[in-house]
Parts: sequence; structure tokens; C-alpha cells
Amino acid sequence: MSRFEERAEKLAGLVAERGDDALLVTDLVNVRYLTGFTGTSGLAIVGPRARIFLTDFRYVERAAEEVPDYDRRRGQADMLASAADLIGELGAGLQIGFDDVHLSVRAHRKLSEHLGDRATLEPAGGLVEELRAVKDEDEIEAIARAAKLADRAYEWLISEHGLAGHTERAVALAMERHVQDIGADGVSFPPIVAAGAHGALPHAEPRNVEIPRDVLVVVDFGAILDGYCSDCTRTFATGDVGDEARETYELVRGAQADALEAILPGANVRDVDGVARKHIEAAGKGDLFGHGLGHGVGLEVHEAPRVAPSGEGELAVGNVVTVEPGVYVPGSHGVRIEDLVVVAPDGPRVLTPVPKGLTVV
Amino acid sequence: MSRFEERAEKLAGLVAERGDDALLVTDLVNVRYLTGFTGTSGLAIVGPRARIFLTDFRYVERAAEEVPDYDRRRGQADMLASAADLIGELGAGLQIGFDDVHLSVRAHRKLSEHLGDRATLEPAGGLVEELRAVKDEDEIEAIARAAKLADRAYEWLISEHGLAGHTERAVALAMERHVQDIGADGVSFPPIVAAGAHGALPHAEPRNVEIPRDVLVVVDFGAILDGYCSDCTRTFATGDVGDEARETYELVRGAQADALEAILPGANVRDVDGVARKHIEAAGKGDLFGHGLGHGVGLEVHEAPRVAPSGEGELAVGNVVTVEPGVYVPGSHGVRIEDLVVVAPDGPRVLTPVPKGLTVV
Repeated sequence: MSRFEERAEKLAGLVAERGDDALLVTDLVNVRYLTGFTGTSGLAIVGPRARIFLTDFRYVERAAEEVPDYDRRRGQADMLASAADLIGELGAGLQIGFDDVHLSVRAHRKLSEHLGDRATLEPAGGLVEELRAVKDEDEIEAIARAAKLADRAYEWLISEHGLAGHTERAVALAMERHVQDIGADGVSFPPIVAAGAHGALPHAEPRNVEIPRDVLVVVDFGAILDGYCSDCTRTFATGDVGDEARETYELVRGAQADALEAILPGANVRDVDGVARKHIEAAGKGDLFGHGLGHGVGLEVHEAPRVAPSGEGELAVGNVVTVEPGVYVPGSHGVRIEDLVVVAPDGPRVLTPVPKGLTVV
Repeated sequence: MSRFEERAEKLAGLVAERGDDALLVTDLVNVRYLTGFTGTSGLAIVGPRARIFLTDFRYVERAAEEVPDYDRRRGQADMLASAADLIGELGAGLQIGFDDVHLSVRAHRKLSEHLGDRATLEPAGGLVEELRAVKDEDEIEAIARAAKLADRAYEWLISEHGLAGHTERAVALAMERHVQDIGADGVSFPPIVAAGAHGALPHAEPRNVEIPRDVLVVVDFGAILDGYCSDCTRTFATGDVGDEARETYELVRGAQADALEAILPGANVRDVDGVARKHIEAAGKGDLFGHGLGHGVGLEVHEAPRVAPSGEGELAVGNVVTVEPGVYVPGSHGVRIEDLVVVAPDGPRVLTPVPKGLTVV
């Protein structure tokens, strides 16, 4: 059984549990996960009695190569009308799940009109995401390969390129190009390079501003390879950053180390987040850690599970999550340290071995 | 009045015409157009009595700089709940438009629940897109600057870099890097470089395959600068491509020239498409032109108006559209020639002056 057949079978089980006859999968990342299709126009209908893939004329040839495990159909200009017809072929009076997190109100209305009384639509968002959260061995190795390329870009940044004297944007662009040059398909998000007080903005965009000496610099960077993402943050020094910044650094490093130890199968995601949060709160800096501890990474750089105060559920073997506490001192400096880790039976497997001692670059 | 105040005022007029009290704008490109905000979390509420901008804690400082013309509010973790509260502040029993093309079924349900009986929601997708389709002078100049950078990248490709002997991917990457090096913020879409039979796929992705001599190569490329996109396609030769390919080239070139002359204010978009289509049909190749003639370009590389057999409405002064007929001969070769043009009172202003005679590169 191919990996795509396996995934479809698991999904069909979840669909049947809900009492649905099939799930209409419209999100392209979910479609890729289930079918292997990498184009920009396609949808899947998956259920106990359905493995249908629909695309338009532009992708018929690609689908023939990429989607051997599905009943492939060519849709008309209005793909939702074609989907409704295919659903109608499955039988009468069906109950069809749809991704209510992805489908727009208008698309839902049109689909309902096309279906008429042939089927009812039931919101069923998150089913494929639930499967995607648990990676198989091939997926973990794909993520590890992407992470390895990003690691090599970090090594190159540290040992060859440097930080001080370059602008934040120049560093971001150089990292992006380097990782492409050594084999990545691209970056998994626009790199963050944020020096000094700019590092206190968790989602800073690189500026055309030269990085000075004696500051902390937050670098958040990931690669894409074969569709899979990596994600890694390090905070470097460009000289003597002073006692306060060094203390912040060691605080975050300690919180990150504690949280890594908590990455175990069965651990509640809120509790894992709490391990890092308590470490930072104990130093009286809890209000300076304004985001969750981490998130899943796979075909998307942000996916399930969410490891955060408002997250739900437990970690499972095969989850791949970030562990990235941060402390942001407004107007002064910021520190974030992020590893990408696989949840394994005997403890976390860290995919991002870039050194975490404060490194002067 | 700032450009953002003007846009909000125009939109408020459209909202009032519909009988709505305000429009909830959730699509980030529309939010940027209306408010100037460039972050990744924000929404706007615009109506005759409302100019409200909402973002989360991460973007409060950026919004203070970028969004001077709106009543700025900081939302809680659940932005839709915050939006519902702000709508509630506007009065009781309101009718609020929302973008049904953008808002997901789940987000709509949550928003409805948050609102309770404070307001009813009415689908109103496309209102901001309607405004965006007509560019002001500043926007046209921004698009022209982006197009100028892409043009220079084409010149560099022709006179310095070359095609034959490089892989399609290497050419795509080189174009992307070059346009960044000369000042673009990036590319407006992943460049297409498709040689020989691969050029017969309208949405070909660059391959790790060396471009041979004596074939046609379709290159589709655009730059982004200050948020605005450009879009230009040329088909080059890498030597003697033979009579059939040359005939296809001249056919498309003729169709493109005819269509350019039809780009006039008041022209029905279907008729404009038909001008190119008839030219190609007259040569018996109508079935090899499988896409619309063009589309609007602005903050997004595909936006209103759509110039296609299924398009609606008339061209208006200030529209910026592509004119890009193509003929795709399966298994053999493809030709597409695309200009980006401004609809002006006295005829089209072409923003993409790269030569259109068949050029050997």
C-alpha cells in the first residue's frame, strides 16, 4: 500500500466515525498530503467508498504522474460544480464533510446550490490536519533534510558571512540564497534578522539598517525541501552585549532546555508550554514572553499541534514541533531560541543542532 | 485628504448604497489597500460612520506608523470576538457586510455567535476589489517602477546571461536574484522558464533541465516593489526554431498587437478577449489558446478586472491589465507574449517595452 493509500484509508476511517459518506478536501496542502498532487488547482473526495481526485485541464498530465492512487477526473471551469457532480455519482442523500476552516462562505453557498438535494454538507475542518500532525518516517527524514540545509546555512553565517556591518536585509537575503545554493528549494518563510531593540519585536521584518557591534541579533530561518519545511531560531551577539542582555539570553536558554526535556509522548501541550513559561515567570519576566512555546512543522511551517497556553491535546510519537521560548524587552533587546524536535518514544530528537551557547558572530 | 481617507470614503459610499452600516474587511490585501497596514494580522471596519482598524499586540507599533487615518484598536487573541465588540459599539441592530469570498464558513459562524443579536451579516465580497481595479496615479507609477525593474532583468537576460546551456531553474533563479539586486523587493510570482515542448504547458514550472539550442523558451516574470506587482511574458528563441514555431510566434504576436489596440475605456472585457481569440481562431488554432487574454495587476498579480470569455464589465481609465494571448502546441512548443498596460483615455500605455520581435538569446 502506498503512503497515499494509507493516508486515504486512515482518513476514510475518521470520515466514517463522523457518520459522513465522504470528505471534500479543498485545501491544497491537504490535497497534496493525501494524493501527492503538487499543482495549484485540485481537490479530493475521500471516504470509505471514494478516492477521487479532480483537477482542471492545466494539470491533467501532472496528475497522471503524481496521483496514481486515485480515480482521476478532469473538472470543468467551475470546479465546485464538477465536485458536486462527482459527489452525486456516489449515491443519493449523502452526508458530505467539508473543511469549514478553509472553504469560504461563497464557495460553500455555490457548492450547496450545485448539490441541490443530492447531498447535505457538514462542517468537518481539521480532519486531515489531525493526520498530518503525526509524521511517518519518510516525512521526518524529509524535514530532517530541510533542517540540515538550514543548519549548514547557519554554520556559513557564523563562520563565513558574519553579522555586524551588514544590513539585516542583506543577511536575510544572503541566508536565503546560500540555502538555495546548497540545495534547498527555498525558505519556509521570509527570514527574520532583527538586531538590538528591533529583536524585541517577535515578528520583526529585516530592515535596511546596518547591524552594529555589541548587540543581540535574533535570526529565525527555515528551509523547504521536497515540500517539507524546517524552522530554527538562534540569537547571536555581535560583541559584548552587556549584563542585562546576557541574563536574558541565559534565562531563555534555560527555559528552552527545560521545555525540551518535557517533549514526551502523552505530555499535554499546555503543560509543555507551562514548563518554559514557569521558568521565565520565576525570573519575573513572564509578561515578556508573549507567544506560545511552539507549533507543528511539516508541509506547512505552522501546523498542528499547537504547543501553547490555549493549545489542546497531548503530544504523540511522530509529532514534529518547535520549542521556541522568547523574552522581548521593549526598546532594548530580544532573545528567542528555537529547536525543531521530533516527539519520539524515548525523548525528543532534535533536528537543529546549531550550538546554543551565546555565540559572537 | 490622504489616499487612504479617499479610499475609505469611496468604500463607505458603496457600503451605504448597499444599505449596510459598515463593511468588515478581513482580506489582508484589501486591508492594506484601505489602511496602509502591511502586517499579517489586521482587519478594518469601514462605513459612513466607521473608520476602525484592529490589530493584535504584535503590530500595535507598526500600525501607529502605518495607519494614521483610522481609529486604531488593539484586539484580543480572538480577533473576531474583538471585531464583534467594535461593531457592537457602533450601535444596535446593525447590518454589516462581510467578504464572503474570503471569510471561511467557520470564521463566519464564530463571528455570528460573537455578534449575537447586535448585528446581522450580509455577504458583500468584491467591494474593495472593485475600488482596487481602478488605480490612482501613485499606484500606476508604483506598478511602472516594478515593471521597469523586470524590464531591466529581461535586458540583462538577453544581453548578458543567456538561455541555452543553462537549466530552466537556473535561469528562473538568476532572474529572481538579478531583479532583487537592482532594487526589487522580490518577484510577483515564481518565474516561469519553459523550453521547447515544456512551453506548451501554460503554467509550467522550471525544471532542472538544460535549455537546448533551436527551441522556443517562454519566460514569464514579474517584480514586486513597494507592494505593487508587475507581469511580463516574452518567448525567445535559442537558435533556428523552424517554420512551424516561427509561424506560431507571428500568430501570437499579431493577436497580441490586435488586442492591445482594443484596450480602450468602455470596451467590454469579453470583446477585448475576443479580438485576440478571433485572430488565433482565424488561423485554425483557437483550441490551442486555452486561457483568458488577461487580468488586472496591482497589489496582487491577479486581480480585477478579468479580461476573458467569462469576464464581465467594461475597461475603465486606471485599470492596469495584462494582454497575454498564447498558443500551446502539445508536445512541440508554446508561445505567449504578455504586456502590462494602463487603460488611458487616448489608448493603452504599455509598461513593458521589452522588444517583441522574435529574439535569439
